[in-house]
Amino acid sequence: MNTEQAVEQAETELNFLQLKRMYIDTHQEPVIYMRKDCNVCRSEGFYAHSRVRISTQNNSIIATVNVVTNNVLSHQEAGLSESAWALLNAVEGERAYFRHAKPADSMGSVRGKVYGTPFTDSTAQHIIHDITRGAYSDIQLAAFVTSCAGSRLNIQEIISLTNAMVNTGSKLDWGTEKVMDKHCVGGLPGNRTTPIVVAIVTAAGLIMPKTSSRAITSPAGTADTMEILAPVILSIPKMRKVVEQEGGCVAWGGSASLSPADDILIRVERALDLDSEGQLVASVISKKVAAGSSHTLIDLPIGITAKVRTQDYAEKLSNQLEQTGSALGLKVSSIFTDGQQPVGRGIGPALEARDILLTLQNKPEAPQDLRHRSLVLAGKILEMGGAAKIDTGITLATKILNSGHAWNKFQAICEAQGGMREPPKAEFVRKICANRTGIVSYINNRFISKLAKLAGAPSAPAAGLDFHTSLGDKVEMGSPLFDIHAESQGELEYAIDFLNSHPDAVKIEEEGL
Amino acid sequence: MNTEQAVEQAETELNFLQLKRMYIDTHQEPVIYMRKDCNVCRSEGFYAHSRVRISTQNNSIIATVNVVTNNVLSHQEAGLSESAWALLNAVEGERAYFRHAKPADSMGSVRGKVYGTPFTDSTAQHIIHDITRGAYSDIQLAAFVTSCAGSRLNIQEIISLTNAMVNTGSKLDWGTEKVMDKHCVGGLPGNRTTPIVVAIVTAAGLIMPKTSSRAITSPAGTADTMEILAPVILSIPKMRKVVEQEGGCVAWGGSASLSPADDILIRVERALDLDSEGQLVASVISKKVAAGSSHTLIDLPIGITAKVRTQDYAEKLSNQLEQTGSALGLKVSSIFTDGQQPVGRGIGPALEARDILLTLQNKPEAPQDLRHRSLVLAGKILEMGGAAKIDTGITLATKILNSGHAWNKFQAICEAQGGMREPPKAEFVRKICANRTGIVSYINNRFISKLAKLAGAPSAPAAGLDFHTSLGDKVEMGSPLFDIHAESQGELEYAIDFLNSHPDAVKIEEEGL
Repeated sequence: MNTEQAVEQAETELNFLQLKRMYIDTHQEPVIYMRKDCNVCRSEGFYAHSRVRISTQNNSIIATVNVVTNNVLSHQEAGLSESAWALLNAVEGERAYFRHAKPADSMGSVRGKVYGTPFTDSTAQHIIHDITRGAYSDIQLAAFVTSCAGSRLNIQEIISLTNAMVNTGSKLDWGTEKVMDKHCVGGLPGNRTTPIVVAIVTAAGLIMPKTSSRAITSPAGTADTMEILAPVILSIPKMRKVVEQEGGCVAWGGSASLSPADDILIRVERALDLDSEGQLVASVISKKVAAGSSHTLIDLPIGITAKVRTQDYAEKLSNQLEQTGSALGLKVSSIFTDGQQPVGRGIGPALEARDILLTLQNKPEAPQDLRHRSLVLAGKILEMGGAAKIDTGITLATKILNSGHAWNKFQAICEAQGGMREPPKAEFVRKICANRTGIVSYINNRFISKLAKLAGAPSAPAAGLDFHTSLGDKVEMGSPLFDIHAESQGELEYAIDFLNSHPDAVKIEEEGL
Repeated sequence: MNTEQAVEQAETELNFLQLKRMYIDTHQEPVIYMRKDCNVCRSEGFYAHSRVRISTQNNSIIATVNVVTNNVLSHQEAGLSESAWALLNAVEGERAYFRHAKPADSMGSVRGKVYGTPFTDSTAQHIIHDITRGAYSDIQLAAFVTSCAGSRLNIQEIISLTNAMVNTGSKLDWGTEKVMDKHCVGGLPGNRTTPIVVAIVTAAGLIMPKTSSRAITSPAGTADTMEILAPVILSIPKMRKVVEQEGGCVAWGGSASLSPADDILIRVERALDLDSEGQLVASVISKKVAAGSSHTLIDLPIGITAKVRTQDYAEKLSNQLEQTGSALGLKVSSIFTDGQQPVGRGIGPALEARDILLTLQNKPEAPQDLRHRSLVLAGKILEMGGAAKIDTGITLATKILNSGHAWNKFQAICEAQGGMREPPKAEFVRKICANRTGIVSYINNRFISKLAKLAGAPSAPAAGLDFHTSLGDKVEMGSPLFDIHAESQGELEYAIDFLNSHPDAVKIEEEGL
């Protein structure tokens, strides 16, 4: 070995440290904890917030440096946050190599966009690829999201981004031409039509392998509610088997790695509360295309406290969704629905699951609004899939539901997914009553969601709200408006505190005013 | 005590934890480490990335939650990152109260800006106030910075933001009408005119209390270089004493808390590498107004690898700087200078300090470009301050420098600041020679800065580069171009590695081509 090789080896040795799990959850941004005075920090000049590439024998990730100045780490160790640990699939004490992360070149295109240069197919591809490989810091992601917001994406840019998002993830293929799907834009509490729609549509013989998400900011996502009734964490082969057998499923979409860039972007969009309709369109369409759908019905609830507040915005969105879908070979239809109040009676996983069962079982106490919405959506999908002629879908859907076929199909799907279960009941229930006589004139969807979350939903599955009234109902002073369900006394009290400080979550006005 | 009071007290008790210093440097964003299963997280529903207000007896800050899932913390403890610990001025074991941070309402105005609504005096004030009190997360800061970039701020918005930035920090008052100042926009390596200019201007009897910054991304800031020659960390009373005695100083500006929002924003702008001229103008002018200046000369070096690349951009900037200054009662003049190559021979704190001494002492080996620039700038400031008639400033400046008055004044200022010192010399020096005969045709300022930083500057004060050639010089193959100075062998090797992979940092072209 000559001197040069010796120097090189010595330098390389300097860049190795042993990995230690720190048991710190930093949310999704991977963090690496390094001693200020370890050889790697000294030689590479890493400091707090440096972006570093960490490579083990099998994996490689980019993480942000936090500098440790006490003896939690030895000079030979570097610590990993929970997300870094999981992404790297690390083993305690494993040796890893550290170097400066190659900066995300595509940030140049984001800066270009800020200065007015539209994205192209190629820059969009480059950006989404860099985001997917973790090369963007949270700050850079925020700049990208902001550069797209405020109607700054034209339809060509939206299509380019959607394409790029599909191309960077897995793609499912169901080996058949017609694959039905649905999506609801923006949360209406309790709007849990999906399991009912899937049961009706598959009972009619169409294929509908539905992947759903868990709650992000709402008291329950479709996957959370469905999980009350059957297992939803299905491997791809298992999902395939269920669909082959029953024509459909309602599974959690998180294990499939469809459009992974979207999951990263959604987190930042949520933190900024920045609605970019371009990003929304790219998110929805990329997920559907990646899930292997051919026909998708988009439900757009319109209401002042819903995500889509006006008819104009709904029309703009539906237009962009249809154009983008079409460019990617996906037939998209939209439907505008009432978004003024919660749907069904229950809000929260178990209470929503109960409403679903009442509806599928044709019980007289089934919430009529949930039943009607499900029939409208299912009817439209039956028409899109050619199982019913135009304007006859709802009739067929009603027949399938009323006859018990949908209920039988739903039970079969639950069994195929791993076995049907009973919704749990909450131990702590508080009745909330009207403080005056009058008409229920306003329900704030956002407050209602917050209230259900404070009561414990969705992580406490039995927690949530159970409504006894709807918009326009006449109520007497002291008559029940809704019940708060909780699994612990503390959570119940939190919800009640919030309600006391937001008494207008449900508004009652004097009749005739 | 009735039941209600008992419940309330019990709940309040739940929200207290004892503070523990974690010795983790997360850069500037304050982080709070909390156990997932501590009472506060359970009852408040905190999770990773929640924004939490932490209040002790005396202080209150907002921090981002990182969730700890092992036993580093007890159920009664919460850990603080270094920046959170410093901001809260915390004591080990101190009790603190936790609650959800009131979200930054002013983010609504940032979203408004994204959708096209300009900032007003009132929204700008609200945003800058929220940023200063730490209510913006990094993601939100990035969205604000992005919303301002790409020429999206009109002059009224720039003035509103500048005013807001001045209003949220301290303001110095020198009890006199004319207070001179200077600022250089964008880094030219080695461009260290300030100490020379201050010596000349104060020797002429004008007041020039200069606050300077340390290096952010460059191999040396004025404060780093000045610190080689005298102490620069001066308290406000100390600074006042130096200025009363000598008419001027060259101090580090970081201890004065001038325009604190600016320091927060600069960090994010740097991470994004997003130049927003509106932010730049607000940053420069707010710092000068807060420092109590009445007259400021802005040096705008123009060059393809400088921050200001074109004459057009320089004119736009100088116009905005002058208008914004005028709106805030600050007289601003601009001067365009050559930004094509480094200034002086040395790059890095000690080597730049050496150039300053050679210039002040009128040594024949003093770099003529540094001398000339300093005279031009000082002359212009003498004219602005009324110490010289128009077009005679440079003559007076030259007289003051040549006579030794500037050198005497500089020594007196150094003594008043705490005592003059000798520049250190680097232990490891490597000569870099021309690999061909020809003309030095191009020097990449950015590569040169990076090279000096890799050699250790500014934290190793003797490290940096020492140039033997300038643009247009004729060099023989093998004749010295520059030396790399380092305080350790490892850093020297790093710099040489970088140079080998970027051989065009200094370009030599065949003569006559």
